[in-house]
Parts: sequence; structure tokens; C-alpha cells
Amino acid sequence: MRTALTELFGIDVPLVGFSRSPAVVAEVSKAGGLGVLAATAYGPEELDVQLTWIEEQVRGRPYGVDVLVPASTVGDRRELVARLRAQIPAEHIEFVRSLLEKYGVESGDLARGHGAADDQVVGVAPEGVEALVDVAFSHDIALIANALGPAPPFLVERGKREGVVVAALVGNARHAARQLDAGVDLLVAQGTEAGGHTGTVATMVLTPEIVELAGATPVLAAGGIASGRQMAAALALGAAGVWCGSVWLNSVEDITPDYIKRKFQAAESTDTVRSRTRTGKPARQLRSAWHDEWERPDAPEPLGMPLQMMLAKDAWQRIDAAAEQGVAGAHALGSFFVGQVVGSFGELRPAAQIVADMAAECAECITGLQRVIHGGAA
Amino acid sequence: MRTALTELFGIDVPLVGFSRSPAVVAEVSKAGGLGVLAATAYGPEELDVQLTWIEEQVRGRPYGVDVLVPASTVGDRRELVARLRAQIPAEHIEFVRSLLEKYGVESGDLARGHGAADDQVVGVAPEGVEALVDVAFSHDIALIANALGPAPPFLVERGKREGVVVAALVGNARHAARQLDAGVDLLVAQGTEAGGHTGTVATMVLTPEIVELAGATPVLAAGGIASGRQMAAALALGAAGVWCGSVWLNSVEDITPDYIKRKFQAAESTDTVRSRTRTGKPARQLRSAWHDEWERPDAPEPLGMPLQMMLAKDAWQRIDAAAEQGVAGAHALGSFFVGQVVGSFGELRPAAQIVADMAAECAECITGLQRVIHGGAA
Repeated sequence: MRTALTELFGIDVPLVGFSRSPAVVAEVSKAGGLGVLAATAYGPEELDVQLTWIEEQVRGRPYGVDVLVPASTVGDRRELVARLRAQIPAEHIEFVRSLLEKYGVESGDLARGHGAADDQVVGVAPEGVEALVDVAFSHDIALIANALGPAPPFLVERGKREGVVVAALVGNARHAARQLDAGVDLLVAQGTEAGGHTGTVATMVLTPEIVELAGATPVLAAGGIASGRQMAAALALGAAGVWCGSVWLNSVEDITPDYIKRKFQAAESTDTVRSRTRTGKPARQLRSAWHDEWERPDAPEPLGMPLQMMLAKDAWQRIDAAAEQGVAGAHALGSFFVGQVVGSFGELRPAAQIVADMAAECAECITGLQRVIHGGAA
Repeated sequence: MRTALTELFGIDVPLVGFSRSPAVVAEVSKAGGLGVLAATAYGPEELDVQLTWIEEQVRGRPYGVDVLVPASTVGDRRELVARLRAQIPAEHIEFVRSLLEKYGVESGDLARGHGAADDQVVGVAPEGVEALVDVAFSHDIALIANALGPAPPFLVERGKREGVVVAALVGNARHAARQLDAGVDLLVAQGTEAGGHTGTVATMVLTPEIVELAGATPVLAAGGIASGRQMAAALALGAAGVWCGSVWLNSVEDITPDYIKRKFQAAESTDTVRSRTRTGKPARQLRSAWHDEWERPDAPEPLGMPLQMMLAKDAWQRIDAAAEQGVAGAHALGSFFVGQVVGSFGELRPAAQIVADMAAECAECITGLQRVIHGGAA
């Protein structure tokens, strides 16, 4: 297949595979797409290890990383976590503590902080994200994407200097215009049906709108794309390719806890919710008892990012641990970011198989469309 | 062009044009699509007049009607309106009265009832809808669609007996399964980006899901479709054609008040809201001061259908009248049902031109997609 995306990276399939699972990233790139690792899932040292591993797997094939660069700054890094933790209201800690208790999940010492959660919090603060960006650029990345806010000049300049494509995820035309002004090389139009942080406009409407605005800058479609038919639809909308995240959560290589993967497989497309309760910003995720509790009239308003993320991350680690031990309440609470395509999840497939299946179905679909204009019922 | 939809009706373009404007319906059918009139915008006598007029225009070309058949029954027709009006709480009437007053719109005798609003209310009550259905079947309709709830047996049986295609709009797989059980001939998968009553699942996800479920029953895609590219994307998703409503609101023939049409043209795709404040059920519409007021902490919860519709219909007639007289507050309140494609509205075009433009762009897009699989960058 050949589009502006395949030309840009010298790849075979116009598909970017975004994942926090290093093995998914490697397999997507090996299968002819472009794997992109969610760097914010890691601290700088761990990211370095994972990127080294990915490079051993892909053997020169292109891959990329994704970071979250927040708009606001938060000061000195050494004290960052402690200072942020001090800002979480006691009411919120007590709400989550009693929520966990109600569902049989260990709730002692909540929000006192620990390694993984703190790493993630630092990773979305400007000083933290710069450390991640340094690690990324020390590797042979082909793309660096920013999923939040306008790309800062340091990122765009460094990308241009080092020959790395700088991409940005956008949820509306205003954000896209800002990213184009900032000089990004590639836009990802992410529809409301996508998993994770999303806006309100659907992929069907957003993609052609951003394509028209972007002019010569290539645009990928994200949100609602987990099959070759959906990939063909995205290309019809003018996208140079697709950016897929949710589909890999149902792959063999994905590191999401098994009990969540099974909840995903049982879910329908109506079972997601766009909620601020996990990160502080609206992010689409599987609806669970967690969301029911936060929607109770007596629940506090979710905090902003990164405070809500700190609060929730502590809780989610405990919930996942308890669910793995068979605590029914924890299973009821269990959730993760996922798009509306969760309703199409069948058996787990290897990530490389997903790439091959999508490419084949897309080509078949495009061929089939010819019958609509040249005779023979579609 | 040729799909299961064009074969079913013997039409040239796989496009259904849904509108409350009789001239739009006629022009869509004359241009090779299938025009469908929103029957609930009319009382039985007025519907009879409009369908007679449409038939004079289309000269044997197929057209259809759309009704809203509610799930619950409400008793004897003669007393229906009075009985329903008595159920509207005084708090709600007072809220809307003070809202209108705040924006400079005449608010006397609110919710005392009058012709047009009462006709519409009766039109969504079972007894009322049967009268509309009788009128529709007395004309030479090719399709009758139900936009709400499972198709009642009387509708399906009558359609089969009289050779009229019975269609149903669905927003999720559960509703689609119920409609298939009821025996409908055609499903319209309506994504959340659509104007009017919608569910939460986007067209990109919903369409292939319903196509897979429907088997041999043809499926149309609705929501987010106002261009040939979007039409091609819908066909790629497996739809036999598209069902478009919002795009006609920006046509020369549409009867929506001019000030609303101008608000639409100024709007972006982020400017719609899915709200219960207009009909009692979630319906997408242009966001205005009306919605801001209903979201105030001291605003009452919207009533159900049809009570909220009765309350709101009275208010909207006054708002539109005041806006036409240049009352600034009324202009700020003004709104109508419209999908996220409102962001793409440019100059008004004749409805027939919209059909021709969409068909040409769709064919061009499908031809262009060949380059993706047969070389040449897309």
C-alpha cells in the first residue's frame, strides 16, 4: 500500500500502532506498520531499557515514541511529587479510600506515594517530560508524538535538527491550527470514539475537517479504527493513514492485566465512558463501578491533571492487584483506557496478525468499492 | 452508482435525504436519491397536503416518510393534549417563562397550548402516529421509517402488505437486534455525531457493527455524512448507502428560519450538544444560551418525552418569532437539531446540487483510493 504516510517512513502499511506494550510496538513495526511507544508509562531509565529492547527487535525498521507535554509548568523537579501530593484535598483521598474499602480493596496509606505512580506524574510535568524526550532522542526514533496541548518549540526544533518527524494529536480544528503554527510535521485527528484523552467531535467529521485545514501536512485518523474496513473509511476521508491504540489491547503481546482484557472482550461499544476521574482530563475508558461511584451525588468533583492522576494511579494499582487475587469488588471496579471499538474485540491475536488482517481487509474493501461505481451491487 | 439501496428503490445515488422541508424531499428524489419527509412536523391534514404536493413534483420517482412511534401508550386521543399539559410541573413552566423574559422574548400564557405544538405532541403519541401512518399509506410512498423504539407490528405488517419498505433508525446493537426481530426491511445505523435523537456510539464504530449483525438486511449509515468523501467512507464501512439529515439544513429549499441557518454557517463542529432539553430524549442540536440556562445548577431536570417537547415547542415558537423581529436575546437562544457536520456548512446550495456534488465526490474518492493499493501516493 502507498500513501503519504508510507512514503514518509518507508513502511508498507499506512498504520501507526500506539501502545504502552514494548512488544506490541516492535511487532507492529516488524509487520510493516509504525509502532509508537507510550513513553509516559515509564520513567526515564526504564524508557531507555525498553527502547533499546525495541531496537534489537525491529532491526532498523522505523518506530516512534509518544509523550504528554502539559501546557502549564510546575517548578523544580526534586520536590515536584511531594508538592503535588500536598495539593490533593483530604476529601478526595477519603472518598477514594472509602470507595476501595467498600469494594474490598486494601486502602491503607493512600496517596502517600510510591515509585511507579510518581514516575508517571513526573512524566507529564514539563521537567519530567524533557527527561523522557532526552532519552527518546538518544535512540534511533523516527517519530515523536505529543498527545496533549501545542508542541513546545524545543520539541519541534529538536525534531527538525535530528530528522525525527514530530506529530501531534488533535481533537478539534482550533488545536490543529495551533499545532500547524508550532510547525509539527504530522497531525493525528483523534475522534471522540477513541480511547484515552479525546474531544467531542467524531472521526467521521473531524478527519476531513483537519485534512482540509492541514493542506500539505499529512493527517492520520484515530478513533474507531480496528479493522481494514475502518482503515479504508479513514483513507476515504482523506487521511494518509490510521493511528490505532485500542486494537492492540486485545493482542497477545499487550501487558494489560488479563482480567481487564477479559472485561474488554465481554464489553459492547456502548460500554465506554468519557470521564475525568482517571487523569483529570476527559479520557475514554471502560465503564465500571469506579465511574458509578464518582457519579454519585455526594462524590467530589474530579481534580485536575496531574492531581487526579496521582490519586487515581494509587487506587488503580491496588485495584489491579486485588483483582488478580480474585477480589470480586476489585473486578467490578477494574477498567482501563479503551475506545468504542472495544465492542468488536474477539479472540486475542498476535499484533503482527492484526496488522496483516487490517491491511488485507483494507485492500479488499477498496477493491470492492469499485463495484459501486462500475456495476455489481456492493 | 449501484448498491443494495439503489437496487431496492431503483434510484441512481445511494443516498436518503431526510428533511422536514417538502421541497428538499422532492428535490432529493428528483436528483436521483430518495427523499424522506419528517411526518411528525405535521398534523394529519397538513401531511396529506404536503405528500400530494411532493408526488406532483417527483412524478413517479420514489420518496418516503419518517414517523416517531413511541414505546409507551397514552390513552384516548381527544383528551390527550389537555391531559399531557396538566402533567407539566409548574416549576418547569416558571423556569422557561423566566428564561424567555430574561432574553426579551414574550412569555405570557406559556404552556396553555396552541395548534402546531399540539399537533406535534399528538404526532408522537401512539394514536396520533397511527393517523399520520394512515395518511402516509394513502399516498404512493416507497419507504416508511421509524426513528424511535422498535417498529410496532401494525407498521411492519402494513408495510409488507402494501409493498412499502419499513426502515428503522438504531443507535446501538441491542436496538438493531430488536428491530430485526420485528421484521424491518432496512436499518439506519445512526452515529452519535448525527443531529436529532442519537445514541453514544460513533458512525465509524456503529456502522460495521450493525452491518455484521444485520446479515442480508441492508444497512444505511447516518451521522457525520455531508460530503462525497464521508459517503465513500460509509460505503467502505459496509453500508449500502447513507441517510443524511443535517446537510439539507444548509440548502436553499430548507424551511428553517434564516437566522438559524446563519448561526449554523457560523458554527464549528464543536458547537453542538446532545441535550434532553428540547424533546425529553437526548438529541443533538446547536448549542445556544438555551442550553447554558438549562445547565445552571438551579435549573430543573428536563421532563420526559412528550412533556418536555410540549414545554419547549411553545418556547421555541416564541423564540423564533422574536428573533425574526430582531430581539438580540432571542437570537442568542435560537437553535435547532443539527449534527457535527454543521462545522462544514458553507454557502447555501440547492438540494439537487448537494446530491450531485456528493455523488460526484464519492465516485472520485473511490477511484482515488485505487492508487493506495495500485501505486501512486494518496
